[in-house]
Amino acid sequence: MEKGGAWRDDGSFAMNREVAPPETVEVALGSRSYHVKIGTGLLEATGPLAREHGLGRRCAVVTDAHVGPLYAGPVLDSLRQAGFEPTLVTVPAGEASKAMSVAEEVCDAMIAAGLDRKGWVVALGGGVVGDLAGFVAAIYYRGVPFVQIPTTVVAQVDSAVGGKTGVNARKGKNLIGAFHQPRLVLADVATLQSLPPREWNEGFAEIIKHAVIRDRSLLDTLHGKDLQHEPARVAAIIRRNVAIKAAIVSADEHETTGERALLNFGHTIGHGIENAAGYGELLHGEAISLGLIAACRLSMRKAGLSPEENERVLQALAAFSLPLRLPESIGTCDIMDALKKDKKFSEGAIRFVLTPCLGEAFVSADVTVEEIREAVEALR
Amino acid sequence: MEKGGAWRDDGSFAMNREVAPPETVEVALGSRSYHVKIGTGLLEATGPLAREHGLGRRCAVVTDAHVGPLYAGPVLDSLRQAGFEPTLVTVPAGEASKAMSVAEEVCDAMIAAGLDRKGWVVALGGGVVGDLAGFVAAIYYRGVPFVQIPTTVVAQVDSAVGGKTGVNARKGKNLIGAFHQPRLVLADVATLQSLPPREWNEGFAEIIKHAVIRDRSLLDTLHGKDLQHEPARVAAIIRRNVAIKAAIVSADEHETTGERALLNFGHTIGHGIENAAGYGELLHGEAISLGLIAACRLSMRKAGLSPEENERVLQALAAFSLPLRLPESIGTCDIMDALKKDKKFSEGAIRFVLTPCLGEAFVSADVTVEEIREAVEALR
Repeated sequence: MEKGGAWRDDGSFAMNREVAPPETVEVALGSRSYHVKIGTGLLEATGPLAREHGLGRRCAVVTDAHVGPLYAGPVLDSLRQAGFEPTLVTVPAGEASKAMSVAEEVCDAMIAAGLDRKGWVVALGGGVVGDLAGFVAAIYYRGVPFVQIPTTVVAQVDSAVGGKTGVNARKGKNLIGAFHQPRLVLADVATLQSLPPREWNEGFAEIIKHAVIRDRSLLDTLHGKDLQHEPARVAAIIRRNVAIKAAIVSADEHETTGERALLNFGHTIGHGIENAAGYGELLHGEAISLGLIAACRLSMRKAGLSPEENERVLQALAAFSLPLRLPESIGTCDIMDALKKDKKFSEGAIRFVLTPCLGEAFVSADVTVEEIREAVEALR
Repeated sequence: MEKGGAWRDDGSFAMNREVAPPETVEVALGSRSYHVKIGTGLLEATGPLAREHGLGRRCAVVTDAHVGPLYAGPVLDSLRQAGFEPTLVTVPAGEASKAMSVAEEVCDAMIAAGLDRKGWVVALGGGVVGDLAGFVAAIYYRGVPFVQIPTTVVAQVDSAVGGKTGVNARKGKNLIGAFHQPRLVLADVATLQSLPPREWNEGFAEIIKHAVIRDRSLLDTLHGKDLQHEPARVAAIIRRNVAIKAAIVSADEHETTGERALLNFGHTIGHGIENAAGYGELLHGEAISLGLIAACRLSMRKAGLSPEENERVLQALAAFSLPLRLPESIGTCDIMDALKKDKKFSEGAIRFVLTPCLGEAFVSADVTVEEIREAVEALR
């Protein structure tokens, strides 16, 4: 493979060194505004960029056991060369690290490293690390700055932008957390080359969701077998998605006006499936793929989405090998039970996001539990 | 005892039923402004007042094993009569409940009770319950409303007002938390009658601190053997203190301009003593009493505080049986070590609050570690 990067037989990773000069998207939130930089070479620029933002001397680089060995080195080097004193804090990889007990352990490590109220946090990794480390930044000394360095597609286009941080309660995903905006987001697309195929593909469920609710032409850009190893093209796709997310977050930071709720398209049923499957059975994006299909089906029935546009979404999901059928092992009743515990079921009422045509979406109060059940059944 | 309330031999409590009609102090914070109501009969008014504030149907009343049996009854009754569905969550009494693990347990109980993002929290108790329950409100569903019902002097004049919430890290007090303002504070002074003498007295350390930094004439009101059982007089004192705290918080919500730092008068050394003593040896207010004495001594040396005014502070502390001498069991080195871990030692620099004359205070960068050590030694 001449152009693309690849894993070598010895377990090391050969990266395509094509350069994508960083471009910037602003998340406009008044005094909490910040920049998302997208491109290659950003890991190595962490120190100088942190310096520009006037951050304190000591920081914690929070990462997980998968990402740390690959990417912590250049981040730590860059920080040290810029005069910072970083401490590496590594948590186990996986959803189980999104827990209060792990948040407390990270705080303990930061105290031991001498971080005080001028300390700050780098979240280096995927959605779990970003949510956890962002939450730690929100509660350490009642809030310290943090920098997101997302290393998965999902994190770059979605979870690292917008300030939602948190951990899971023992009885419910994402029920404990805080709104805490980062000071800066560095989406280094070179890091995406090392993602295993399933983790690469799952990120496109969120990208396809963005296309459905805001930008149908985005679907035209999602093709090519070697896309993962073409940093310039990947950067362009990530940038469009960050711009969509940034505009929605700017309009509705705390999910109060309904705008931000549009991002839940496909997620009501998707989360129900993810919960019912038990974490780990399906990746988040794989469950969301099924949620998107169900939401499109309901949109045909309730909002006039055309069968042709519905088919277009299915094809986009299929192009990234995302699941189109619900595994038999996941029961409909389990999904419906899980769904009823979802945060989005506000005091019992269902607010369900529908799309009348690709590129538009709205929140409907007109979808019944029975209709949701039918849409789930239709996934079989 | 005809006028005052008292504990009966059977363990029940006979309260002086003197009425102090509630008065209101506003904490002005723009969209986060709220009222502190001070007087008698407020426990019984919780439901109608919550209704006025448009709070959701389900709430959690978080209290501890000491306060719950005394005061949860009227609060729950009032809430139910106003159409709310309260769930009582009782934590063990004492500082050990200010922990991440307990915060998670309270969240679990709220999930089990079906509270969603429209749920809210009542903090019924002293500083520990207020800090813990406020923190839970800050992080549950990324933030839900809460109502403070403080039942100690310290909580009514200090910790329930201003939005500082949090728990202790395993290696440091108050290092984990959030700024989260309550929607409403109900300071029912009738509850203060049941405080044991030490807990009643310790609250006056914070009151004397307020007098020193903002209102010297407040010292003239702090007398009378039966004060604890004279609700109208107590309410007047609490109200003046809440007004002082509210003005400072309004000027500097997040402790960024230096104004709010004035509230740390006596607390740098006081916290060092509290930490070195081991929690429970000295009550918070007792440690602060010693901190106030040391800060006044340093103020004489560094800021021109007169010996007469210094003496006046000592007499006020003595009138509430607060400690004037450091117990021999607490070592100076332990105090200095603890002090260096204090949040207020920002990146190694000491910002110490001094008073040049009663009623005024300022933050000084001019106090050395050696001078602090001498002031601690002088407490022996």
